[in-house]
Formats: sequence, C-alpha cells, structure tokens
Amino acid sequence: MEEIVTRSDVDVELIQSHSSDESVAWSARVSTMGEQAQSDGHENAGLINFLMKNRHGTPFEHSFFTFRVTAPIFVFREFMRHRIGWSYNEESGRYKELDPVFYIPDRDRPLVQVGKAGHYEFVEGTNTQHYISIAGMKRTYETAYEAYKEMLDIGVAKEVARSVLPVATYSTMYASCNARSLMSLLSLRTKRNMTTFPSYPQREIEMVAEKMEVYLEAAMPMTYDTFCNNGRVSP
Amino acid sequence: MEEIVTRSDVDVELIQSHSSDESVAWSARVSTMGEQAQSDGHENAGLINFLMKNRHGTPFEHSFFTFRVTAPIFVFREFMRHRIGWSYNEESGRYKELDPVFYIPDRDRPLVQVGKAGHYEFVEGTNTQHYISIAGMKRTYETAYEAYKEMLDIGVAKEVARSVLPVATYSTMYASCNARSLMSLLSLRTKRNMTTFPSYPQREIEMVAEKMEVYLEAAMPMTYDTFCNNGRVSP
Amino acid sequence: MEEIVTRSDVDVELIQSHSSDESVAWSARVSTMGEQAQSDGHENAGLINFLMKNRHGTPFEHSFFTFRVTAPIFVFREFMRHRIGWSYNEESGRYKELDPVFYIPDRDRPLVQVGKAGHYEFVEGTNTQHYISIAGMKRTYETAYEAYKEMLDIGVAKEVARSVLPVATYSTMYASCNARSLMSLLSLRTKRNMTTFPSYPQREIEMVAEKMEVYLEAAMPMTYDTFCNNGRVSP
Amino acid sequence: MEEIVTRSDVDVELIQSHSSDESVAWSARVSTMGEQAQSDGHENAGLINFLMKNRHGTPFEHSFFTFRVTAPIFVFREFMRHRIGWSYNEESGRYKELDPVFYIPDRDRPLVQVGKAGHYEFVEGTNTQHYISIAGMKRTYETAYEAYKEMLDIGVAKEVARSVLPVATYSTMYASCNARSLMSLLSLRTKRNMTTFPSYPQREIEMVAEKMEVYLEAAMPMTYDTFCNNGRVSP
Repeated sequence: MEEIVTRSDVDVELIQSHSSDESVAWSARVSTMGEQAQSDGHENAGLINFLMKNRHGTPFEHSFFTFRVTAPIFVFREFMRHRIGWSYNEESGRYKELDPVFYIPDRDRPLVQVGKAGHYEFVEGTNTQHYISIAGMKRTYETAYEAYKEMLDIGVAKEVARSVLPVATYSTMYASCNARSLMSLLSLRTKRNMTTFPSYPQREIEMVAEKMEVYLEAAMPMTYDTFCNNGRVSP
Repeated sequence: MEEIVTRSDVDVELIQSHSSDESVAWSARVSTMGEQAQSDGHENAGLINFLMKNRHGTPFEHSFFTFRVTAPIFVFREFMRHRIGWSYNEESGRYKELDPVFYIPDRDRPLVQVGKAGHYEFVEGTNTQHYISIAGMKRTYETAYEAYKEMLDIGVAKEVARSVLPVATYSTMYASCNARSLMSLLSLRTKRNMTTFPSYPQREIEMVAEKMEVYLEAAMPMTYDTFCNNGRVSP
Repeated sequence: MEEIVTRSDVDVELIQSHSSDESVAWSARVSTMGEQAQSDGHENAGLINFLMKNRHGTPFEHSFFTFRVTAPIFVFREFMRHRIGWSYNEESGRYKELDPVFYIPDRDRPLVQVGKAGHYEFVEGTNTQHYISIAGMKRTYETAYEAYKEMLDIGVAKEVARSVLPVATYSTMYASCNARSLMSLLSLRTKRNMTTFPSYPQREIEMVAEKMEVYLEAAMPMTYDTFCNNGRVSP
Repeated sequence: MEEIVTRSDVDVELIQSHSSDESVAWSARVSTMGEQAQSDGHENAGLINFLMKNRHGTPFEHSFFTFRVTAPIFVFREFMRHRIGWSYNEESGRYKELDPVFYIPDRDRPLVQVGKAGHYEFVEGTNTQHYISIAGMKRTYETAYEAYKEMLDIGVAKEVARSVLPVATYSTMYASCNARSLMSLLSLRTKRNMTTFPSYPQREIEMVAEKMEVYLEAAMPMTYDTFCNNGRVSP
C-alpha cells in the first residue's frame, strides 16, 4: 500500500496585497473632485458606507490581494466558477506528480443534509456514519494512489495516470482578486444569518472563504464593516 | 461490486446558436458607416480576413453558441479556466447522485510523453502500459463508486460522499460563448502544425474542442477559414 | 452656418436574439439532472422565481440579444462602463465623418436637480431655463460643426477635427448581451419605486434602458416578471 | 468670453503598484512545484521568456497598477473599450462642474492622414492647417463653455448643461490593471515597427500608453523586455 496523508483543513495565506480603505475613498471622490481627488484627511467612513449600501461597486476594485490556497480539488472546482476579477494559477496534474494528500471530514463536519434542494441544512452525523465514511475514503485513496504510482512507474504520462485521483486530492493555487471580487466570493461562499440574500455554500469552500475574510477585515476595516452591516451584498 | 461504465469519448452537441459571418461584417461596418451599417450585398470575405489578420476582435462577439458537453471532470477543470466570454452550468455533485461513468483511454490514445515541459510530445503506449492502466483505472473506479454508494446508503450527504470520486468521472455542462471566445478556446486547446503560436493541449479537451470546431465551421465558414489561414490566432 | 439636426429621442432596435425562459430552466436543471436536463414540459415559473430570488445568476446567461442603439455620445460614455457580458462596436470618429445630429432636451425633460449628491431628484424647468438651454446648445452645435467641416475641408484628419464635436453628438453602436447582463443594466439604469437598491440614472440612458426592457419582457416573460417582483436586483 | 485653458499633453501618474517579475515566476512555477513554488533564487528570465513567447498569459495577472490619468474625453472613450482586467473611476459631468480645459494639437502633431482605412499613416500638417484648426477649436471651446456656464448660472442641472462640452474636454480617471491587461493595452495602443501584429492607434491615446509603458518597464523589467522581444503580443 502507498502511504497516504489525510487532512481535514485548508491553507490560505496572503502572499501580497495592496489594499486600503483610502483607495475606495479617493477613487470614488474622483467623480466629484476630478484631479483633486487624492487621499486626504477627509472622513471616509460615511462615504464608504454610502457606496456599499447603494451598490456603487467600482471604487472597491482599486485594491489587490494574492492568496496561496491549498485545498481539495472539489473546492477548487467551485472556486474557479468565479470568473470576474479573479486570476488563477494552479498546480498541474499534467506537469507535476501529485502528492498523496487527501481530504477527509473531521468529526465536527456535519454529514447529513436535511430539507429540500436550495434550502439544505446540515446536521451532525453519527459515529457510524463518520467511521464508515472515513474507512471508505481511505480505502479509495489508497487504491487510487497505488494505481496512479503504478502507471507512473511503467512510464505512463502523468496527465493520463491522474485520471484515477479523487476530487478529494489536495492542490495548491495562487489566486488574485480585488476587494469587490473578494466580497462577491464571501457573499456567495459563506453562510451567515441575517444577510440580504441567503447562501448555502459547501462547508469546505466556506473554510477557505472565512480565512480570506480575516485578511479583508485587517486590510480594509471600514470596507469590511460596511459590507457586514449592509447585508453582506457585494457592491 | 458496483456496476460501472467506462467510456473513451466525449459528447458535444450544439443546443442553440445565432451566428453568421454577416454579423461580423455589419458590426465592423458600423465604425465607418454608422446607422447605415446593415447586412447587405457587400463582399464580406475580404473584410473578415482583414479583421482576423489584424486582430480586430470585437466584431466576432455578436454571435452565440450554446453547447451541451459530456466529458470527464478533468476536462471540465481545464475548460472552466476560460473565463472571458464563456457561461457555464454544470451537473452538481452536491445536488445530484453522480452516475458510475468513468473515462479510460482507448487503445489509440498516446500514453507516453517525451521531451521536456512546455514541449511535450506524446507517443503510443505498449500493450502492457495500456492494459495495466486500464486495470488500475477500473479497480479504482469500482472501489470509489462502491464507497460512494455505501456512504449515500447510510445517509451521508452527496457533497461529502463525492469526495472519493475520481476526476475521470463524467459530468455534463451547458457552455455558451461567442465566436471570439470560441476561437480563443480552439487556439489554445487544439494542436495543429504551422500555427502562429504552438499549443500542447491534453488530448481529451482537444476532443471536445474539435467537435466545437465543426459547428463553428458550419455556422460561420468565412470566419472559420480566415481563422485557419491566419495562424489560428484568436482575434 | 452648417445645417444641423437636433433630436430629443433615442433609437433601440433588436437586431438578433436567441432567448427564452426555457433556456434558464434547462441550464439550471443540469445541476440536478445532468444529461437529462433538456427542455420539457416541466413547470418553469417556480424554478425561475427561485433562481432570481436567491441570486443564482448563471442560468440567465444562456441567452443572447444584439441591439442597434443610436443615442448621444454622453449616453454611450455611461453605457460602456458595463464591461461584463456586453460586446460593443460603435461608429468611429476616426474613420467616418460624423453627421450633424445633436441632442437637445425636449420640453418635458426635467432640467433642475434638487437634493444632494447620491440622492438627486429632478424637477421641471421653467420656460426660460428651457429656451436659454436650447439656444445655447444650438449655438454651440453650429459653431462646433462649422469648425469641424472647415478642418475637414482643408484636409485635416477626421480624428483631429472631431475634437470640437460635443458629447451631445449622436452615435450608433451594436451592443450584444445576455439576459443576466441586460438585467444588470436595467437594475442600474432605470429608476423605479420599491426596488431593493435605489438607482438614479441620467434620464437619457434610462430611455435606452426602457426600450431594451420591452424586448426582454417579450422574449423572456417569466424571467422579466420575476426580475420585477424580486426588487429588480440582477441575479 | 469665458477664460479657457488649452493643453496638448496628457498626465499619467502611478498612484499605487504591487508588481514584480518574481510574481510571474512563482505563479507559473505552482504548475510544476505546487506548494513549494515560492520566490527563490531561481533564474527567472528564461521562464518569463518562455511564458511570453508561448502566450501563457495567466502568470502575468498577479500584479497590480493604479494610474491617475488626465486626458481628453475622446481618449477616455477609446480607453474604456478595454473591458478585461481594467477597473475605472472617472470624473463625472453629472456630479462635478467641469473645468474649462481643452485639447489642441501642438505643432508637431501630424494632422494629415494618407492611405486607406485600416492602414492610415499620418504626416505633418501645414502652418495653415494648424492655425485654422487651432482657431476653430478655440472658437468652439469658448462658445461651448460660455453656453455651459450660462446654463449652470440659471439653475440647469450639470448633467444637462454638459451636453455642449466637446470631446476635447479634459477629464481625470483612476485606472487599475495587471501586467497582462496593461500589455494588451500597449499592444493595441502603441505603434511600433516590427511587431507581430500592426496597430494604428490615435496619437493621443498612444501618449497615455507610452507613459504607462515606462512604469511597466521600471516595475517588471524582465517581463517588459520579453514583451518587446517577442513582437509586443500580449501573452
């Protein structure tokens, strides 16, 4: 048996950033002040709240974050549906031998879905459900990785051999965005009470989103507060 | 053992389209003719060739294709990196129990990669390479689908259970585009001699691209010819 | 004096379209039905309302409209800020001698703005305000077009001579979009009571948007109704 | 007569940036190195040249530039046709009284266009052409701004009064982009000999592009060199 590694978490690290609440303010003020619209001592909080509440989105685009994300492929599949204001480069199964690292839910991950499509809620699984799931997953991951390595060993191309690898396989990407596209992701990929529009993300992509949210709050606290206070609607 | 189905091909069907060479011509002519720029008896071939050769891309955007594509997940992973001018809706492993249909290479699929990264060439595999690969794939697919069904049977949510499914699992999507975004895909995802820029796509996404190419040629023959005659560079 | 033409209206004509409520339904159903998600006798209204209300936007993208729009340049300046899901080709002052057609407000166009930035309301102008405005506009348009023609007559390039032309000059463009990007425009460029988010568009771009709205209603009546009934928020 | 100001130049200032050749290298290396793809002592020049030459564009997107640009409206009209990877906020004639600053060509600006559409070349104008143009422009700008101020003085809304202002009126915007979208602009909006695809930009937008090009060269010298050495094709 190949030695495999299992994980239940995700990594999100901010690699580079150039972001500030001031950039929202001076880019908005160019509308009314033209060339004079520079960062100054103006009170920005009221302006940023006005922009967020009324969905004037473009001033939130003059900001920049690059994250390195390590997460299962099924998370990346959802993530890359975000097309606008996002740039991606990901580890490639065509060019790199993939490592034997696979996702398993930890004991706290709710396993059972109740309710109907579009309004799913998740509740805790039983011990039996948890252990049967973990066992089935590990058995599959070992079988898959053994087949993968066997194909590589006899000279089959990586892009063919990877067919067997499960969507639970961990991958790594660099993802760049601006504050507007980041809030769009947060709006759709986190579940919070009392938002203007409800979202029911899969827990694993929400874990990635929550880690990104911490960086947004740190870099642009006024923007972040007004986002939360106005129903978490991306402007 | 669960009964599984293996396939080596992909399905691409044109579901709806509104595309013509005339739309390229009248949208380009609005530059020089304004309101009078309508579809008329003008000679369009020369104009379309000029636009393609000089990379005036926007006139190729007033066209519309929707395809239904059935292909392995690893193909969809590459496909959805095309962000601009493409719209997607795909079968969801969160909402639907996925069918036990998986990709295996047929005997003709070159299995061995020679050369260095960025300039890979593929050559035929041996019988041994082929049969060991097929055996390892089938064994993995059966193990994975058995684990998947077992989790579903005991009440685990589909979105958790699908973790075990391989990237070889078939999925279906609707994908809409215009002629410009379609040519961008063809430029990057087909390998042809004598193109202005070389591309080294994985064979399986090239199979999807080749089927789309037939529809482009049928709907917009002048556009297609000038694309091929000018190095297959997307305008 | 050059003979000039003044107008107070805009033209919007639907040139080509491939749009239906069914396309929303079958592209959404692929999530849960996979390959079987085709247009059938299903009840679509409830599904479309669910998608609109919960802001599942992508199923509204598999649709296509091309409009020919004739309107003043200051309208086109605002219109082309819509980047996503819109394709444009416009009459060019570099390649075509522009016609002497210019915008003037008709007597009903509210001329006076009250309230503060971000919450402007417009009220009717007096006869004096109207007639002084019209006179100043006509005087400027004549002066500008005379200078334009004089430069052209002595051999100055069109792209230089057009510098003098006012933003009231009429231009023509082809603009293509899908139902989602069209609803985004309508949401921002029409002013209606009781919408979820308020918009304060300039009246002249609203006139363009209102004419497009009629075509959306005709082509996709369920989509249109649910858009209006859910606060006119683009999904 | 209103006092007007005329200019023949444009302003481009880099307001904020987070850009480096290293970001191209580590984002590309994630394909082959996964999590280990970090900025290190590797030789980057060869890799960047490979990416540029073969049009692997995405690694050039993890970079960020915000410019403040002051230029005539007719330049902004062309600039904002660049939809992808560009964010804009511009001075608004709806919310701000516009200043009386207008473009006139300086004596060196070639005024006469020879050749046919799509292959225009520009040659120097005569003194007569120059002075008649300047006179016609100034006469129009004064007439227009006088009418503009008269309307404002009697209480007409700014958004109506601005109708008379010429496309030569100066405006200011903040524009953010990444290195890939910036190279796309440079490719189309500068005219150079020996490029893979020819471009025939209007001189005034080329002046903006040239000033941006200096900032790209300073921030990402390897990227810039390979761009120039590979035909100035945006990757």
